Amino acid sequence: MPTPSSATSTPSRRIVVVGGVAGGMSAAARARRLDEDASIVVLEQSPYVSFANCGLPYHLSGEIERRDDLLLHTPESLAASLALDVRTRSRVTTIDRQARTVTVASTDGEYDLPYDALLLAPGAVAVRPPVDGLDHPAVHTLRTIPDLDALVARLAMRPQDAPGRAVVVGAGFIGLEAVEALTARGLQVDLVELADHVLPPLDPELAPLLADELRSHGVGLHLGTSARDVAPADDGTALVTLSDGTRLAADVVVVTVGVRPASDLARAAGLALGPTGAIRVDHDQRTSDPHVFAVGDAVEVTHAVTARTGPVPLAGPANRQGRRAADAMVGRRTTPQAPVLGTAIVRVFGLTAAVTGASQAALVQAAIPHEVVRLHGGHHAGYFPGAEQVHLVASFAPDGRLLGAQAVGREGVDKRIDVLATALRAGMTADDLAELELAYAPPYGSAKDPVNMLGFVAQNVLDGTLPQWHAPDADAVLASSLVLDVRSRAEFDRGHLDGALNVPHTELRARLDEVRAAADGRPVAVHCASGVRSYLATRVLLQSGTDARNLSGGWLTLAAVRPDLVRVPATAGA
Amino acid sequence: MPTPSSATSTPSRRIVVVGGVAGGMSAAARARRLDEDASIVVLEQSPYVSFANCGLPYHLSGEIERRDDLLLHTPESLAASLALDVRTRSRVTTIDRQARTVTVASTDGEYDLPYDALLLAPGAVAVRPPVDGLDHPAVHTLRTIPDLDALVARLAMRPQDAPGRAVVVGAGFIGLEAVEALTARGLQVDLVELADHVLPPLDPELAPLLADELRSHGVGLHLGTSARDVAPADDGTALVTLSDGTRLAADVVVVTVGVRPASDLARAAGLALGPTGAIRVDHDQRTSDPHVFAVGDAVEVTHAVTARTGPVPLAGPANRQGRRAADAMVGRRTTPQAPVLGTAIVRVFGLTAAVTGASQAALVQAAIPHEVVRLHGGHHAGYFPGAEQVHLVASFAPDGRLLGAQAVGREGVDKRIDVLATALRAGMTADDLAELELAYAPPYGSAKDPVNMLGFVAQNVLDGTLPQWHAPDADAVLASSLVLDVRSRAEFDRGHLDGALNVPHTELRARLDEVRAAADGRPVAVHCASGVRSYLATRVLLQSGTDARNLSGGWLTLAAVRPDLVRVPATAGA
Repeated sequence: MPTPSSATSTPSRRIVVVGGVAGGMSAAARARRLDEDASIVVLEQSPYVSFANCGLPYHLSGEIERRDDLLLHTPESLAASLALDVRTRSRVTTIDRQARTVTVASTDGEYDLPYDALLLAPGAVAVRPPVDGLDHPAVHTLRTIPDLDALVARLAMRPQDAPGRAVVVGAGFIGLEAVEALTARGLQVDLVELADHVLPPLDPELAPLLADELRSHGVGLHLGTSARDVAPADDGTALVTLSDGTRLAADVVVVTVGVRPASDLARAAGLALGPTGAIRVDHDQRTSDPHVFAVGDAVEVTHAVTARTGPVPLAGPANRQGRRAADAMVGRRTTPQAPVLGTAIVRVFGLTAAVTGASQAALVQAAIPHEVVRLHGGHHAGYFPGAEQVHLVASFAPDGRLLGAQAVGREGVDKRIDVLATALRAGMTADDLAELELAYAPPYGSAKDPVNMLGFVAQNVLDGTLPQWHAPDADAVLASSLVLDVRSRAEFDRGHLDGALNVPHTELRARLDEVRAAADGRPVAVHCASGVRSYLATRVLLQSGTDARNLSGGWLTLAAVRPDLVRVPATAGA
Repeated sequence: MPTPSSATSTPSRRIVVVGGVAGGMSAAARARRLDEDASIVVLEQSPYVSFANCGLPYHLSGEIERRDDLLLHTPESLAASLALDVRTRSRVTTIDRQARTVTVASTDGEYDLPYDALLLAPGAVAVRPPVDGLDHPAVHTLRTIPDLDALVARLAMRPQDAPGRAVVVGAGFIGLEAVEALTARGLQVDLVELADHVLPPLDPELAPLLADELRSHGVGLHLGTSARDVAPADDGTALVTLSDGTRLAADVVVVTVGVRPASDLARAAGLALGPTGAIRVDHDQRTSDPHVFAVGDAVEVTHAVTARTGPVPLAGPANRQGRRAADAMVGRRTTPQAPVLGTAIVRVFGLTAAVTGASQAALVQAAIPHEVVRLHGGHHAGYFPGAEQVHLVASFAPDGRLLGAQAVGREGVDKRIDVLATALRAGMTADDLAELELAYAPPYGSAKDPVNMLGFVAQNVLDGTLPQWHAPDADAVLASSLVLDVRSRAEFDRGHLDGALNVPHTELRARLDEVRAAADGRPVAVHCASGVRSYLATRVLLQSGTDARNLSGGWLTLAAVRPDLVRVPATAGA
């Protein structure tokens, strides 16, 4: 049975790391770089360390051709470059905090390993939803290399001449990646999501863009629906019955309804856990036991905006936590732990969706006052060919502080969200966004980047220059206001709101009396396609003494949120 | 002769804007949105307003097919949507600050126009270098639509069956765009630059990447060279003689050696100018006369890092200044004017180069202490297909504050520079960059983004964990140190430094005695290809008590800065 080397006369620091991916491996590598003499043992229960967890869907799709490309390091390569003692298929069964030892169950048997500092990086485990029949061999998860291998093997089993069918349960980040991957493999995919829109962390006005993209790639969407049971079919495949009675045949079922912290070992050892079951740590990643540290998906973090505590299963924070834990374990200065923004991104066929900070729903839940700004900006200069719209939603505190931002589009989404994540980390306000000096040449951006524009619009909203109305409040607004549609006659004729008055914005100054007469004392709810022309019109109305508000995000946002309203048949005139 | 309308009984605010592009037009539009009653006259000396200055090279190339796409607005469209009185071919000849009038010379004759607030947005004019014969009809600049038209007309004149030749003088941002455009049009282009590298604002270790890209597209480079004279050739083309005696035939010569503020009108009016000839303004864009404002390429700004004052001809700041000036002119709250970072970007065929903050040269000139960090990171996860290197250089103050950053690469450069420009604006430190939470999924980035890595490396450099040596100091280092090359034997055999000892990093722990013997008391100058493996090796050496330093940016940077050193023929062994 392996033991840590301790041949030197002065006792060297003994570090034991439980979990050899992301945060755990970052910690082990950093610890070695800082302490050449330490004994560092990494215990990993699976056969693989340091694998590209986030890459699994892209090998499933075939985009990452070679499975080996997912294996970033091996125990051998880590021994050679970092003198790490990496032991796979080695599961820690208990922690004896008094004796400072862990008990390891390995293929070589069980043994105890002493530590001066113990780092727990156990990660998370897939949540098993309450669905009958999940033990059917067609049912898979997608968290680990063995998960991937099993799924690939299952797909290889089915007759290759017939088109396969897959059901993905859960339309979160991993679920959407799985949908894309399975579609790329030629399967007909059905996606089942309990929430009323795909990618539940996304604000509801952006999600329909993803839904359209999924449908346009042949994906069957079952929203507001759950899987009820999985039953064997005659041909060995599975039959998935949904809560609405729909029955879907499936060669494979991939369940991605979220993860929970793998904190059983920590719990059994009596370490403090938070109410969500995640391990409590201080700013040095230290648990309630000063000799035990924890990082990654299993630990509790604080959200930067909502101050909510809980686990956030993201690779970036895990890696940085590992680095910080290593600094703490070897007695180095540690940098302040930044609260988590929850920045995340996903590719959905040709679209990208990304989020940072608090969503509108999270702000409402946390009772944080905020104004929402929406815009549809070009990813680069509009006069340069190929400009794609970046659909942006951002929330600001009444004092102007950015609280969260989300974006969907075909190009330039990752850049804007990264800039906004940086701004959020810095505590920037609408004024600050307005003054950001981003790189502009026609192929890359605009002199007024969409991020600057978010700042401009937020300034106008917050200081009262531009009062807004919002698509989710449409029913109340329509009942009490004159809707003024300032798009062109041609746009109006292609579809408009019932009862709307069409005055193209260029005619408004000359037709103010007509608008006032139509309003008859009611406030005027202005809109155009995206919110730019209606901004000009709203300003004209306000300065003429008319109570007017601008539809945030314009027709594009309204169409996403209330398709029932905008599907009014076009009528000549109005 | 046109006069401002003033039919209303209450006297409305009279705003006159001189210059109808970028900053001037931003101000006029914002002023209208804030003050529906104001009389707003925009005077533009050229036939065009609100044209896409930055797009000119891309119409020259053909990428923007239609010339009209460069004309974002017309006087008619601006009258219709914003009730602006836009007068083209209208040059302001004098400002009478006592009477608060400007004299306008137009095609309709000369007239005076009164103002309550005057905004000067005159822009910049191309610098005419001291070259004989610049009046040759083949010689062009590229600042305006008429410039573009003249250049296109000249190109159309030459025989279309023979390949044309062009000489571009000045390898700055516009010069490089002109080179790309003319090459795209099928011309053989020679580029002449006085500095010793292309894109002089770029740090010298990054510029060779652009030079290689230019050469690979057939561009002839003449660095450290100037044009001496342009003479007529027998066939009507030009013959350009360079300072080194080289003679270049040219169908067209494009001169892009920079611009100077168009501040003659302001100077004649007695407004305060700075030492660079740019108009002095306060935080509200107000000049030394409280009724006169100024924005754009003609005004003096303060650099955020070096505190140097002078003009910075960039579209983004110009637009924001226009907005701020409008707020001030109508008596609104103005937001604090952020000092300028000088963020800029250029596409050079398949490469992108971008800068923000202070370059190394600017820091040296301003005597600002700094540490330089270099890295070559993947634009997205390395295991995901198509990862391209982002070559990054960043400077940090001893207290960790970011001072400037530059990047060159094929993908993801704009994103990293925008994030770094945001971080710079926020006053972020190395610690902050390390903790940035950027969007990660394999197609977009890495769990440890190159920007995070910059923070990690800077932390290590600043706290002494990783002492560095730098390629520009190679001669002194090589004379006094043992060079330890920790790349693989195969890499070493393909080229290495004279006298270097090759110990692959995975063998270093076992061969420490050999290294110490070879060093014989000298410090050890470690390097690998990019700086990652040598970081590990440097840490091993330092902890073994050996004086060791890591080559910043590794072999990749050394090869760019000192190609003479790295072109050692490979010898078996070492």
